Amino acid sequence: MKQHNFSAGPAILPASVLKEAAKAVTNYNGIGLSLLELSHRGPEFTAIIEEANALMREILELPDGYQVLWLTGGASTQFCMAPMNLLNEGETAAYIDSGVWANKAIKEAKLFGNIDVIASSKEQNYTFIPKNGKVPKDAKYLHITSNNTIYGTQWAKFPKSSAPLVCDMSSDFLSRPFDVKPFGLIYAGAQKNLGPAGTTVVIVREDLLGTVERKLPSMLDYRTFIKENSLYNTPPVYPIYVSMLTLRWIKKNGGLKGIQRKNKTKAAILYNEIDQNPLFQGTVTDKADRSLMNVCFVMTEKYAALEKEFMHECKANGMSGLAGHRSVGGFRASIYNAMPKSSVQALVDLMSDFAKRKG
Amino acid sequence: MKQHNFSAGPAILPASVLKEAAKAVTNYNGIGLSLLELSHRGPEFTAIIEEANALMREILELPDGYQVLWLTGGASTQFCMAPMNLLNEGETAAYIDSGVWANKAIKEAKLFGNIDVIASSKEQNYTFIPKNGKVPKDAKYLHITSNNTIYGTQWAKFPKSSAPLVCDMSSDFLSRPFDVKPFGLIYAGAQKNLGPAGTTVVIVREDLLGTVERKLPSMLDYRTFIKENSLYNTPPVYPIYVSMLTLRWIKKNGGLKGIQRKNKTKAAILYNEIDQNPLFQGTVTDKADRSLMNVCFVMTEKYAALEKEFMHECKANGMSGLAGHRSVGGFRASIYNAMPKSSVQALVDLMSDFAKRKG
Repeated sequence: MKQHNFSAGPAILPASVLKEAAKAVTNYNGIGLSLLELSHRGPEFTAIIEEANALMREILELPDGYQVLWLTGGASTQFCMAPMNLLNEGETAAYIDSGVWANKAIKEAKLFGNIDVIASSKEQNYTFIPKNGKVPKDAKYLHITSNNTIYGTQWAKFPKSSAPLVCDMSSDFLSRPFDVKPFGLIYAGAQKNLGPAGTTVVIVREDLLGTVERKLPSMLDYRTFIKENSLYNTPPVYPIYVSMLTLRWIKKNGGLKGIQRKNKTKAAILYNEIDQNPLFQGTVTDKADRSLMNVCFVMTEKYAALEKEFMHECKANGMSGLAGHRSVGGFRASIYNAMPKSSVQALVDLMSDFAKRKG
Repeated sequence: MKQHNFSAGPAILPASVLKEAAKAVTNYNGIGLSLLELSHRGPEFTAIIEEANALMREILELPDGYQVLWLTGGASTQFCMAPMNLLNEGETAAYIDSGVWANKAIKEAKLFGNIDVIASSKEQNYTFIPKNGKVPKDAKYLHITSNNTIYGTQWAKFPKSSAPLVCDMSSDFLSRPFDVKPFGLIYAGAQKNLGPAGTTVVIVREDLLGTVERKLPSMLDYRTFIKENSLYNTPPVYPIYVSMLTLRWIKKNGGLKGIQRKNKTKAAILYNEIDQNPLFQGTVTDKADRSLMNVCFVMTEKYAALEKEFMHECKANGMSGLAGHRSVGGFRASIYNAMPKSSVQALVDLMSDFAKRKG
């Protein structure tokens, strides 16, 4: 039976990428060795990371002055690493609290400077993007979370800010084109749109670094990775390789413009069904904030008792990863870049059919 | 042609492990999805990490009170994380400087407390293990590097110390049985004997934690990983999976005793050839310190001009990864757990044959 993987992350990857990624484990490029057992300083991996960097620059249209780094530790490590590198004690950074992950970023940043939370939707269980904040004049940066995986909200347009934006883009990185220039730092765990879990991409404006007074351990200093081209120590070879394959796939699929077009279509199909189906309703209160990546919905009150039954039918039809996060409940369909329209259509068909039978 | 992978790391993995690892990328356990796209909180990965932990405990015969953690960032991140978690400012830790990596550990630790380098072989280009150090009474721990990949030296017996040992065991972890009880903390990048690059194992005596006053970011606090069973955030799923497969393989091959027996045999074959072949000589000055993992040798002075020719013949015979580190020169044959005796024999045969033709 065809499997439809709606997991929030680690998430679906393009079938062609997975096919090539499997081959590399047995026999990389026909050299008779596995990529897993090759030196990260050898010609094979050198070519891989160079291609990954070049593709990332091309796809994001990165201007000079921005560096692409391949780190580990996930966005959670960036929650501390970003302020460590950008914020002196006594200096202020503005943060917008749009979800659990934004909240964690705030908690970690407080170890390093004055953190001004200028907007929050926490009291409303993060059902919308809080856009009413004012960035203080002395803020070194404004931190936002571009897409909130748990709540299914997304910044449709990034906020205007006099200070550079620092952005956790983990769950919608590479899902749409955007202008990099307002950003000082972008970080993203690979395991949504880019690759398997195990590497974290950082895009950083180099001139913002080197201004903090604290002594940074080498592995927590972005400059170490810039200087050594992400090869200061052994990088996560395989996750970077698979990410490179995905970057090739993005380029082949029309770059970020082509990807965005498909993402918009998929999301429209699903939100349309949610809005017209009497059994279901979306959880995001402001439709403008609806995420194109994570579509959160619940059963309407009248049909709430049918939740388990619908989930059971999803599973019986090969649809996995659809359980909503415990803090939202209901359903979450994560429809990242690699999710085919046919899988979204299969879910919509089931919702529609279920309503006919039960409504 | 049969390939012989003598890479120092990322390094050779068992053929059976690679075969199963490749299958998991296409279709994990027959479920119709790739392991790369499965949630780290799903039943599949839960079973994997639980088995990995259980196997690690069994293979190392870990007593209660020790925790097994799966981190990222390599040993280089542990260079700062260990002192951050164990050493207050003003407190002293003893370090033994047995190579470039030990030296890096010392450099990072100096950011966090008083570092007393009690022994060093740096002046002799690290050609032996410096064993003459005295651990100060007030030392919180003694840091050692169990095996020095670049120089081919290894602690045959670990030093006695009143303070707990903290050990970078990256390049000989799981290559031999040892008593864990003198150790407070052991860390190892996976990419030698355990798995692909991308995860770092930490074995820590839990009662040593929570004694430092500094505020630790969550991702740099071992207790975060203990509390969440290494699942505080998305872990490097695939590198952990492959490591679990290797642990199964170690168990099947007689555990650490069985592995050590094979490693001793392989090393004896190679060192024996180096010592009797007039064209080659070992670089480690004290034979007792010779590594069973990384065998470093050069051409004798008389035959130094033949180095390139011998390297060329190695490559022509499918032997890769044999170039010595630039700071030692010559050759380095890394013969980790997964290296078959037949590959070591092939190298020895070539050395012997080369000597007959050129000597």
